[in-house]
Amino acid sequence: MIGNPYRGFTIFFTGFSGSGKSTTGNLLVKTLEDRLSQPVTMLDGDEIRQHLSAELGFSQRDRNMNVRRIGYVASLITKHGGIAICAPIAPYRETRREVREMVEKYGGFIEVHMATPLEECERRDVKGLYAKARSGEIIQFTGISDPYEVPNKAELSIDTSGIAPEKSCEMVVDKLTQLGYVKKSD
Amino acid sequence: MIGNPYRGFTIFFTGFSGSGKSTTGNLLVKTLEDRLSQPVTMLDGDEIRQHLSAELGFSQRDRNMNVRRIGYVASLITKHGGIAICAPIAPYRETRREVREMVEKYGGFIEVHMATPLEECERRDVKGLYAKARSGEIIQFTGISDPYEVPNKAELSIDTSGIAPEKSCEMVVDKLTQLGYVKKSD
Repeated sequence: MIGNPYRGFTIFFTGFSGSGKSTTGNLLVKTLEDRLSQPVTMLDGDEIRQHLSAELGFSQRDRNMNVRRIGYVASLITKHGGIAICAPIAPYRETRREVREMVEKYGGFIEVHMATPLEECERRDVKGLYAKARSGEIIQFTGISDPYEVPNKAELSIDTSGIAPEKSCEMVVDKLTQLGYVKKSD
Repeated sequence: MIGNPYRGFTIFFTGFSGSGKSTTGNLLVKTLEDRLSQPVTMLDGDEIRQHLSAELGFSQRDRNMNVRRIGYVASLITKHGGIAICAPIAPYRETRREVREMVEKYGGFIEVHMATPLEECERRDVKGLYAKARSGEIIQFTGISDPYEVPNKAELSIDTSGIAPEKSCEMVVDKLTQLGYVKKSD
């Protein structure tokens, strides 16, 4: 698969809001574009909602539809030899499995569980969402008032507490190297 | 652009139901996969509705959202050097222009107007939809009870009345050759 422009893959981050999915994912976009000299597309939960799921809410059904749509787009990018990075919360195990199946029809699927503990995510509260979830202003908030099913066979698990985004990014690149998607000498 | 696996493009069919979009598009998938040795993805109006727009109806707003979603996916395939074929009805000129803009950020966009006259499409009525539209069982049916804005600068226009699907497909391949997306000798 190394050096074959037609071998695509998808890196699928899952984890709580504030766990480091987008931050790590965005760094990874730049790192992989530099090292592999090909475009990398970030399918962020929020961006995809705008483009593909404007009408969906946060019920289990709607969350799953949104995650499946992200998976469908990632599977097509992978099919065409591209690299997609997905960063939805994706709280349900079964839906993540479905997405893996869609993508693996065409190429590689690397699930990365951002295992930053809820307390740390809430402490960061970059977007002020946890405060709103605690006050009840936002309902169905993953970790507070909505479930999160921890992955049991993710390719990689990262707790970003106390480590820099560059380090998380490096951990993913190391895993990709180990799996043969990135060459050691690249 | 010839021979560069990273130069993607999108072929965007527009026209009435029954005008030959899917039939020509499906033939084109096989023809291009054979000649270019790379995958080609067909984004059929109906298939995309299932994957990305299950909740949308046929109002102008909903049709436009569906066509924009198709365009978004096609633009990402194009970005990664892939080939996408879109076959929605896409009745509104402004939305087609938006899709062109999205795709041209990354690669080529070839609009093909399936200019088969309404009378011929209705005569074929493969899915029995025109009969239902005439009886009022289906409302907002393009050409019968909903508008279609004819393209004024499509790259190609094909009236499929009395010609075989193979011929329509050949006309698209000839246009692609002329535009440099397919090599003469391929």
